[in-house]
Amino acid sequence: MAAEHRSGDGPRRGFASDNAATIHPEVLDAIASVNLGHAFGYGHDSYTHEVERRFEQAFGPGSRAFFVFNGTGANVLCLRATCRPWEAAICSEWAHLNTDEGGAPEAIAGVKLLPAASVDGRLTAAAVAAMLGREGDEHAVQPRVLSLTQSTELGTVYTLDELLELAALAHARGMLVHIDGARLANACAALGLSLREGSFDAGADLVSFGGTKNGLLAGEAVVVRDPALAQALPYLRKQSLQLASKMRFLAAQFDALLRDQLWLRSAAHANAMAARLAAAVGPLEGVRITRPVQANGVFAIIPATVRAALQERFDFYIWDEATGEVRWMCSWDTEPEDVDAFAEAVAECLQVCT
Amino acid sequence: MAAEHRSGDGPRRGFASDNAATIHPEVLDAIASVNLGHAFGYGHDSYTHEVERRFEQAFGPGSRAFFVFNGTGANVLCLRATCRPWEAAICSEWAHLNTDEGGAPEAIAGVKLLPAASVDGRLTAAAVAAMLGREGDEHAVQPRVLSLTQSTELGTVYTLDELLELAALAHARGMLVHIDGARLANACAALGLSLREGSFDAGADLVSFGGTKNGLLAGEAVVVRDPALAQALPYLRKQSLQLASKMRFLAAQFDALLRDQLWLRSAAHANAMAARLAAAVGPLEGVRITRPVQANGVFAIIPATVRAALQERFDFYIWDEATGEVRWMCSWDTEPEDVDAFAEAVAECLQVCT
Amino acid sequence: MAAEHRSGDGPRRGFASDNAATIHPEVLDAIASVNLGHAFGYGHDSYTHEVERRFEQAFGPGSRAFFVFNGTGANVLCLRATCRPWEAAICSEWAHLNTDEGGAPEAIAGVKLLPAASVDGRLTAAAVAAMLGREGDEHAVQPRVLSLTQSTELGTVYTLDELLELAALAHARGMLVHIDGARLANACAALGLSLREGSFDAGADLVSFGGTKNGLLAGEAVVVRDPALAQALPYLRKQSLQLASKMRFLAAQFDALLRDQLWLRSAAHANAMAARLAAAVGPLEGVRITRPVQANGVFAIIPATVRAALQERFDFYIWDEATGEVRWMCSWDTEPEDVDAFAEAVAECLQVCT
Amino acid sequence: MAAEHRSGDGPRRGFASDNAATIHPEVLDAIASVNLGHAFGYGHDSYTHEVERRFEQAFGPGSRAFFVFNGTGANVLCLRATCRPWEAAICSEWAHLNTDEGGAPEAIAGVKLLPAASVDGRLTAAAVAAMLGREGDEHAVQPRVLSLTQSTELGTVYTLDELLELAALAHARGMLVHIDGARLANACAALGLSLREGSFDAGADLVSFGGTKNGLLAGEAVVVRDPALAQALPYLRKQSLQLASKMRFLAAQFDALLRDQLWLRSAAHANAMAARLAAAVGPLEGVRITRPVQANGVFAIIPATVRAALQERFDFYIWDEATGEVRWMCSWDTEPEDVDAFAEAVAECLQVCT
Repeated sequence: MAAEHRSGDGPRRGFASDNAATIHPEVLDAIASVNLGHAFGYGHDSYTHEVERRFEQAFGPGSRAFFVFNGTGANVLCLRATCRPWEAAICSEWAHLNTDEGGAPEAIAGVKLLPAASVDGRLTAAAVAAMLGREGDEHAVQPRVLSLTQSTELGTVYTLDELLELAALAHARGMLVHIDGARLANACAALGLSLREGSFDAGADLVSFGGTKNGLLAGEAVVVRDPALAQALPYLRKQSLQLASKMRFLAAQFDALLRDQLWLRSAAHANAMAARLAAAVGPLEGVRITRPVQANGVFAIIPATVRAALQERFDFYIWDEATGEVRWMCSWDTEPEDVDAFAEAVAECLQVCT
Repeated sequence: MAAEHRSGDGPRRGFASDNAATIHPEVLDAIASVNLGHAFGYGHDSYTHEVERRFEQAFGPGSRAFFVFNGTGANVLCLRATCRPWEAAICSEWAHLNTDEGGAPEAIAGVKLLPAASVDGRLTAAAVAAMLGREGDEHAVQPRVLSLTQSTELGTVYTLDELLELAALAHARGMLVHIDGARLANACAALGLSLREGSFDAGADLVSFGGTKNGLLAGEAVVVRDPALAQALPYLRKQSLQLASKMRFLAAQFDALLRDQLWLRSAAHANAMAARLAAAVGPLEGVRITRPVQANGVFAIIPATVRAALQERFDFYIWDEATGEVRWMCSWDTEPEDVDAFAEAVAECLQVCT
Repeated sequence: MAAEHRSGDGPRRGFASDNAATIHPEVLDAIASVNLGHAFGYGHDSYTHEVERRFEQAFGPGSRAFFVFNGTGANVLCLRATCRPWEAAICSEWAHLNTDEGGAPEAIAGVKLLPAASVDGRLTAAAVAAMLGREGDEHAVQPRVLSLTQSTELGTVYTLDELLELAALAHARGMLVHIDGARLANACAALGLSLREGSFDAGADLVSFGGTKNGLLAGEAVVVRDPALAQALPYLRKQSLQLASKMRFLAAQFDALLRDQLWLRSAAHANAMAARLAAAVGPLEGVRITRPVQANGVFAIIPATVRAALQERFDFYIWDEATGEVRWMCSWDTEPEDVDAFAEAVAECLQVCT
Repeated sequence: MAAEHRSGDGPRRGFASDNAATIHPEVLDAIASVNLGHAFGYGHDSYTHEVERRFEQAFGPGSRAFFVFNGTGANVLCLRATCRPWEAAICSEWAHLNTDEGGAPEAIAGVKLLPAASVDGRLTAAAVAAMLGREGDEHAVQPRVLSLTQSTELGTVYTLDELLELAALAHARGMLVHIDGARLANACAALGLSLREGSFDAGADLVSFGGTKNGLLAGEAVVVRDPALAQALPYLRKQSLQLASKMRFLAAQFDALLRDQLWLRSAAHANAMAARLAAAVGPLEGVRITRPVQANGVFAIIPATVRAALQERFDFYIWDEATGEVRWMCSWDTEPEDVDAFAEAVAECLQVCT
């Protein structure tokens, strides 16, 4: 798919992360195309308003999008918009919120996280229900948000039914549902759902919709449907250090992402590359795929010596030092040739090292 | 200067803000030029390291730069890096920190600001000294940072001697000096100083170095010289929602800004446009320039009817509703023709409306 | 009034602060009287509930009291209960909140204070109105609470009409009115108003009702009338480190304070002592009373040498180092003899030192 | 021990909590004994200084005590004193910090807790070591404090060797050791150690030393030995809403507690009562003691019907709704007769209900 802007012997592409990828050329073109004349700052320009309307079309009537810089910003904004000081968020113990936001939920939003056990990154209704026992007890934080990462940090995807069940449980307790959608596009592509179907129609109340991992330079959107949340967000976005002054250039990136379903084309491609990779290396003796491959990441355990040899040639991360589990991420610009070369290298290293 | 990328009857340019301006084409080119292949995220790539070294050359040996998204982010990061919970920042009552950060210093950094009176936005040593009387009193916050905006929110510039005097006063009390340099480039251009001379050599300990108002898409840099601050900043940048995953595209913007002194060319041009504007409208009867024009902004009082008529044709802000003072900002892409057309419009409106 | 528990040549009493005073014996007796058997902690005991009902009688139907440890706690709790993260409190530049809470409003509540000029500690409607100009501007904090100290930090008292005017102004803007009533008893005593008349009937929405400065060991009460505030306060009190486990002993102190109008007897006495002091020293040449004496404090300027000599013999504070203004506070246990001895000492020092 | 101030048919005593108990009469006497004359507020009086010196004798040379109102306050103060914004605390998943502080560690101190699995409330070195893997990773909070509850929330006591091992592990990583000592007295009584031996000599760097659960009206002390911590604490105590204005009455309580080893007498008595209770009910069929009884609490599982019948007659809490585990706490004022009556009631209920 991305073949036209790739030189055959060009710069190396690895499997470290989807944020190691480039900016999609349609996105860069969109930025350049609005780089003319003056525009009011901070989103008070007509072009940004137009892109915001495009979001409303994508996520459903009454929804409102607020563009921010990065995923930590989007997630923390969602916590700040929903939790009063004594309220808490339930999330998976693997949630990016819990493990990789540098303590921002606690230090910036002042919100306690209640991490629950998960199956391959997916929370179960039983695990969530087990955390709801202290309603009205002033000594305990009161759960207010259920935060679901979709697709998950472990490359898995909640089904629509799972989302609906979890949302029903949360709503019955007066809780809101947040989707950490840094890779929502990959999940929707995998499930064959529109953005609306995969978020608000699936029970979400707030969405961190990721762009950076899907081909943007930098940009995420907080999307909400509740007018009270929408009223708070302008103030919170500013105060949370997430209000871009030259907003039109954030808007342009999302313009490109929504136009001609670039989000879907890119995400589906990345998913396909992960599937290709899993198919190529899964059968190899010495490779154990550890998680269902449902989006754009492959998790596996390979011998330590193989891993070391492979890392000489390709970038990727060790996910769990204790078990030696590794993570191989595909992105919008991963080429089939990249996958095939990597799979070959895995096979070679296995032969040499074991 | 910017003539080559301006069409004679192209999109309108006003005087609302330097962040209403476009991205400088050299900056956009720099972004495109690094949009190849994969790079480790979060600044752990060799290209970002190279640009960081370029910063060290510009700001002096031992200095370290941390790229962030926006000015509020840079300023709040500086407060968080310097103040323990009971410590405070002294700033001008006009400081952006005090008036336009949406309460982020207090809500995000937990830092109390101690606003002091100023002369056209410039703090005086006497005003600062008057706020230092409660050292060791546990009931009062303890001043830890003196934050100076350079150039100021009122278009004025501290002289080098003024900076040195204020820094000496602060350092004598064990305080650090922060420069809110969203427009430091304009100040250095006005004073004929290098970035280093206008910051660390002038007594600063931390600098928020602005890029967005000087032609970037989005980007500011926190620059420090103290190793202890440098050690804290990676954690604080991440936690403060300011760590870009695709960092190379922030680095690229700054690469362009420092290369061939684009920062100076752009800032000097914007300053010259403000001087041209002041020279053109200052002599007009009915216009009173209210602040010394030392950087890229002109502050003036004009009759309310004139103002209204003028705003029909050009974008600009009323700075002070009470006095009717207006602000006209010039930017890197302001053309002499823009200035002349605006000055003519002022003259016309004055004739028609008064 | 307090003569029965004072030995003629007993321990020295000064004019440093009303919190330098002792525990009123009726308060200590009340503590001892409930020191029997076990009681559920954290206020979930029937005796505490009974004292809470007594508060409702004093402050009016539907009001609810929450006992806390100290004044900083009560004030910060009120800010946390009312302000969302981007909302602010307007207060006098002399407000204890602004000058003497160690930065707790900002660091603990995350709330920006907007200090306004005052006349002898009393805010005027004009000064408050001048701070209300940026409604809806996401770059500025949005005023949500008007905090009035009654009686003020400068020993003055808002009249009922002043309170009503300020409250009307605040309510018209959708703001709430908080009374920092560390010395509300003294104000009500001065105005001849009941606690209800001097608080909720005067337009207040939340009250920090002081006990410690009026004869308690330690105890303040946050009193609210809005059910939404009352619902939040149990959680906020716990989280704000202000929930006493052995609550009955806080309740007992307030039981004593409300019983037989001890609050009024004590406050009226302290006020009378301040009036006596002002009458005695005001006419002396060399003494200039600087503020209207309306509650239990006297502010004055005396020659520096006199002040120094006097401080050898009596404890009191210099209020303003710059002007040499001093503060003499009377308390529930100040005796007429204490006042007379002090006034004599002032006269002597004036003779000797000038 | 407490027989002299108990009426034979006086008010009921239960087993709900050690904070359901009364004030020890020696404590109340101490308060009354300093209720004379004026004293400078906020601890700046000679009597408070004297009690502080008494603490230094008890906890060892160079240690400094800061009196605060309650346990949440003491614990949060310790977190605020030690953790920079990106630093975290490791504690047991049962830690009061984690389960019962109403989210104060996160909302007030901004500190993320890293809860580790424990054995009956005691952390193991292996569990702690497993949480130390991401040193230097800016995406993860950095552990700075190891918080140990001694005696634990489950009635168990770390041995001196266990404390030393955990402290060595923490110190080797540059971490500090905090003891949440709400019941440190009970632990020291159980181990036969002095307060110093059970805290600083056992490797602690900061201690929340509990008073309220051991016979005070209200009072805890933060004790530190590091001069840098001691320098920060006055500011943090004030800002954290924990600075008592009439400090002498907090000091008096601690004066009584340390004088004639009241702390030890009371704690040893409470421990003995728990042992008596365990001995009486442990052998009964239908009662399963679930945790080692090492301090002043007994944890057990009894049939639900028995529990319900017993709660009609005595106050106590269900500790774990899921398992039906109950908690029976003894306090300084628990009488042998109380224990015997309760044990009899258990036996009766078992007979009737099963």
